[in-house]
Amino acid sequence: MLDFIHRPTAIISPDICRANIAAMLARCHKAGLQLRPHFKTHQSLEIGQWFREQGIETITVSSLSMAHYFAKEGWTDITVAFPVNIREKELICSLAEQIKLQLLVESIESISALEQLPLSRPSSVFIKIDVGAGRTGIEAQDTAQIDRLLEKIEQSNKLHFVGFLAHAGQSYSARGKVQIIDHQQNSLQLMQQLKNQYQRQFPHLICSLGDTPSCSMDKNWEGIDELRPGNFVFYDLMQYQIGACTLNDIGMLLAAPVVAKHPKRQEIVLYAGAIHLSKEGIFWEEEQKTIYGLATKWTENGPQIPIGFNYLRSLSQEHGILCAETDFFNSVQIGDLLAIYPVHSCLTADCMGQYQDIEGKYYTHFRGRKK
Amino acid sequence: MLDFIHRPTAIISPDICRANIAAMLARCHKAGLQLRPHFKTHQSLEIGQWFREQGIETITVSSLSMAHYFAKEGWTDITVAFPVNIREKELICSLAEQIKLQLLVESIESISALEQLPLSRPSSVFIKIDVGAGRTGIEAQDTAQIDRLLEKIEQSNKLHFVGFLAHAGQSYSARGKVQIIDHQQNSLQLMQQLKNQYQRQFPHLICSLGDTPSCSMDKNWEGIDELRPGNFVFYDLMQYQIGACTLNDIGMLLAAPVVAKHPKRQEIVLYAGAIHLSKEGIFWEEEQKTIYGLATKWTENGPQIPIGFNYLRSLSQEHGILCAETDFFNSVQIGDLLAIYPVHSCLTADCMGQYQDIEGKYYTHFRGRKK
Repeated sequence: MLDFIHRPTAIISPDICRANIAAMLARCHKAGLQLRPHFKTHQSLEIGQWFREQGIETITVSSLSMAHYFAKEGWTDITVAFPVNIREKELICSLAEQIKLQLLVESIESISALEQLPLSRPSSVFIKIDVGAGRTGIEAQDTAQIDRLLEKIEQSNKLHFVGFLAHAGQSYSARGKVQIIDHQQNSLQLMQQLKNQYQRQFPHLICSLGDTPSCSMDKNWEGIDELRPGNFVFYDLMQYQIGACTLNDIGMLLAAPVVAKHPKRQEIVLYAGAIHLSKEGIFWEEEQKTIYGLATKWTENGPQIPIGFNYLRSLSQEHGILCAETDFFNSVQIGDLLAIYPVHSCLTADCMGQYQDIEGKYYTHFRGRKK
Repeated sequence: MLDFIHRPTAIISPDICRANIAAMLARCHKAGLQLRPHFKTHQSLEIGQWFREQGIETITVSSLSMAHYFAKEGWTDITVAFPVNIREKELICSLAEQIKLQLLVESIESISALEQLPLSRPSSVFIKIDVGAGRTGIEAQDTAQIDRLLEKIEQSNKLHFVGFLAHAGQSYSARGKVQIIDHQQNSLQLMQQLKNQYQRQFPHLICSLGDTPSCSMDKNWEGIDELRPGNFVFYDLMQYQIGACTLNDIGMLLAAPVVAKHPKRQEIVLYAGAIHLSKEGIFWEEEQKTIYGLATKWTENGPQIPIGFNYLRSLSQEHGILCAETDFFNSVQIGDLLAIYPVHSCLTADCMGQYQDIEGKYYTHFRGRKK
C-alpha cells in the first residue's frame, strides 16, 4: 500500500473533495446563493478545475499574488478577501486590467492609495465588515464610519462599490449544530441590517459571508447574496470538532513514515513534524487533550476511519510523537506508513506545497516547494 | 526603507549570522570540541557557505533529502540527526556511496533494514540516546538495550558504530543561565557515564550533544566530542526567553506590511500570518501572554531593538493581529513595513522558503517556494 511514498506526503482523495464541492454547491443552489469558494485552502490549479467542472466561475483568494496565479490560468472573476495591501501597487494595476478584480477596503488611507493608482478602469471594492470575529473590518454597527468610507469611494471615479463582505470567524468556537446556527444567526442579522440600510442607495449591493462551519449547514441566508467558504473542500479535525463535517468528509491526510517505537510509553515516532502538519493544535474535548493530528492505517481503499484515540501529542520540526492505544501500537511496524488526519488542512497544505492521490498523481499548490 | 519589499519577506542580517557562527565556533575551540552545526535551521546553501568560510566542514541535517541537497553542493561529512527512515532505501545507498554519511539508529528493526541494503561500503551509525527530553532515543540508563543494539551492529559488516548522539531538548524549558546549566549538567553526566562504560570497547567512541541553549554558554563539556546546535545562526524569541541570546543576536526577521488599523482596540493588522511565521506561540512571562512575535520598526541600519511590548496576539492564515502601545500605534501608517521578531526561526524560515537581506540580495532555502 502506497509503496511509492517514502517521505511525508499530503494525500488527497479526489472523490471526497469533489463530493464536498457538490454538497456545498447544492446547499447554495437550494438557498439561492452564489458560491464564490475560497481557494486559499487548496491553492491548486487542478483542484480549481474540479470547481470549474461543477460550474463555478467566481472565486475568492487571500492574496494578490494568489489572484495572479489563478488569473494566469483563466480565472477572470476574483475577490481578494484580505485588506488590500497597498504596497503591491503594480500587481493591483495589472490584475485590474486583466480580470474582474474585487478588493477589500476598510480605511480612508487604503481608498486614497487605490485612487492614486494609474488604474485603467474602475476597480471594484467591498467594505470589509466585522460581524463579531474581532479580527479586522469595520464593526457592523459603526455606520458613521461606513458612511465616511462610502462617501470617499463615491467621490472616486476609479473605484466602484459592490457591497459588504464579512468572515464570521467566531463560528470556529462553536461546538455542535445549535451553536453554529446561533453564530450564523448573529452574523446574518448584522449583515441584513446593513442591507436594509444601504440597499436603497445601492440597489445592486452584494452581501457576502463565508465561514465553512456556517456554510456546511442548511439554513436561512435571507439578505445574503454569496458565500465564500474554503476549508470545506478538504475539511479537517477542527471542522470535525466544531461539528461541520464527519471524518468521512476529510479529503486530505498526511502520509507519515514510522521511524521509531517506544514500548514503555507506548509512543510511536513519525516522520511528520511542524514543517509538514503546521504547529496548529486543537483541544480535543472528548479526551481533554491538546492534539496535533489523529492517526489511522491505510487500507487498499484509502485510510481507515480512526478507531480508538491514537493522537499526536507533540510536534518538533520533523518529529511527530504519537500516543497509541495498545492494539494499535502493537500492530504498527517501523517502516510502515500511517495516515494522519490534520488539525487544520489549510496550513498543512501550505506547509507541504503539493499533493498526491493514492494512484501517485501529483497536484500543484500555489506556494509549491522546489524540493 | 526597504521599498523593494511588497509582501511578507524573511530578512536576514549577514553580519549578525556570521557573528553568531564565530561566537559558537570560539566557544567550541575553547572547550576543545568539534562543531557540527545543524543546518535544519537555515537550510541554505549560501548561509552554509558562511560556515565553510569559518572552517566548518562537518554538518548535521534533519532528513536524508536535506543531506542530498547539501551533498550536491560539496558537503562530504553529514550526520542525519533523525531516526533513519528506512523507506528511503535508494537515497541512503546513493548518499552512502558519495559522502561520509552518519545515520541514527535506535532499534533492531532499523539496523536490520540497513543491513539488508546493497551498501557498497560500511555506513556509520550513531545510537540515538534519550538524555531526558522524552522525544526519541534509547534511555541513557538502558544499557541492556544499548548492548543489544551494539551486538547487532557489530555482527554486521555493513555498519560501523561511531558513538552516542543525544539532543537535550528539555533545555527549552529552562529560563535563565542557572537553569540552562542545570539541564546541561544532567545530560552531560548521562553521556559521560556512557562514555566511561563503552570507551574501552570502542576507543574512538564519539559522544555528540547539541541544543542551542546549552551550546550558547561557556561550560564544562568533559567527555563530549562534538556539539550540533542549529538555531543559534538566527536565534529567535524562544532563545531570548530561555536566556540563550539577546535581541541583538537575532539574525532573521519577518518584514510585514501594515494593512489595517483599529484605533478603538489599538490593534494593527499585518500581512503576516501562520503561513509566514508558523503557528508557534510562546508564553511571554514578563507580560503573562502567549505571543506569536514582537514588532518593531525599520531604520536605515536595519530593525530597531523592540521598544515597549508590541506583540502579535493571534495569527490566522495570512493575518497577524498586533496589539500595540499608544505611541507605537499612532506612529504606524497603513502601507508601512514592520519588522517581526519570530518566535521560532527554524519554522519561520521553513514557511518562507527563501530569504533576502536589506540590500535585496536573495538566499536560497532547501524547501524553497516556487512562487
